[in-house]
Amino acid sequence: MKPFYVGLAAIIEKDNHFLILKRSSKKDFAPKTWEPVTGRLERDENPENGVLREIEEEVGIKAQVVMPIDTSCFYRGGQEFPMVFIYYWLKYLEGEVNLSWEHSEYKWVTLDEALEESTLEHFHEQFQRIIKLKDYLPKEFIL
Amino acid sequence: MKPFYVGLAAIIEKDNHFLILKRSSKKDFAPKTWEPVTGRLERDENPENGVLREIEEEVGIKAQVVMPIDTSCFYRGGQEFPMVFIYYWLKYLEGEVNLSWEHSEYKWVTLDEALEESTLEHFHEQFQRIIKLKDYLPKEFIL
Repeated sequence: MKPFYVGLAAIIEKDNHFLILKRSSKKDFAPKTWEPVTGRLERDENPENGVLREIEEEVGIKAQVVMPIDTSCFYRGGQEFPMVFIYYWLKYLEGEVNLSWEHSEYKWVTLDEALEESTLEHFHEQFQRIIKLKDYLPKEFIL
Repeated sequence: MKPFYVGLAAIIEKDNHFLILKRSSKKDFAPKTWEPVTGRLERDENPENGVLREIEEEVGIKAQVVMPIDTSCFYRGGQEFPMVFIYYWLKYLEGEVNLSWEHSEYKWVTLDEALEESTLEHFHEQFQRIIKLKDYLPKEFIL
């Protein structure tokens, strides 16, 4: 059996707006680019709990998992194993964004604004998937 | 960073029926229990491609991924790393089921029949999620 690292993306949505964060200039990889909350799964952690932990660490707000919406796998040079990435749609519940050292700015953007931001390109497809699902699902839907 | 194995479950649905397989009596782990198509991700394989490969190997039918519907993490004694499991909903497209040595029987079951089968208990929640989504999404929906 082949091992993998497991990465998590938390796409937090509030009234058709998505929370995106600007990576700090202190980050080795891709500084000053935009991304949703992301992180890595810890040993024996349920992935949904990992997502909520990352949100607590990176932005300090309360959110609820609606459902997973996508998966991918990629290899970043220099690492021992490829990384499987799982993308979740979350609903914002409450709290004010409080950034960690990992990010320098945040904003809530519409789908169109997200698609215009080229440094977010690895997440464009996932924002589109959420908007597509919202066309059909009731406002308070949680899977 | 902590490594994981990555397991995949392919819940194939056809007109509100799910494809389930009986594990062969030759299987070391959980022989003669029922399950959907499952497998393990290979190195550098996109998870959705891994799901389609497992379907080809285990039942030889054509199916299309609708969306991921759940994730979990568990540790099976004696293994080096915990396993992250990703569950996908797939739509049956065409072909006759052709079992490999891994399974001895198959059947298409309704949600109620799946819930009555106790050896399928680790997948009950995921069958329910698909039926819940089907209440809202158009028949031909693919995320």
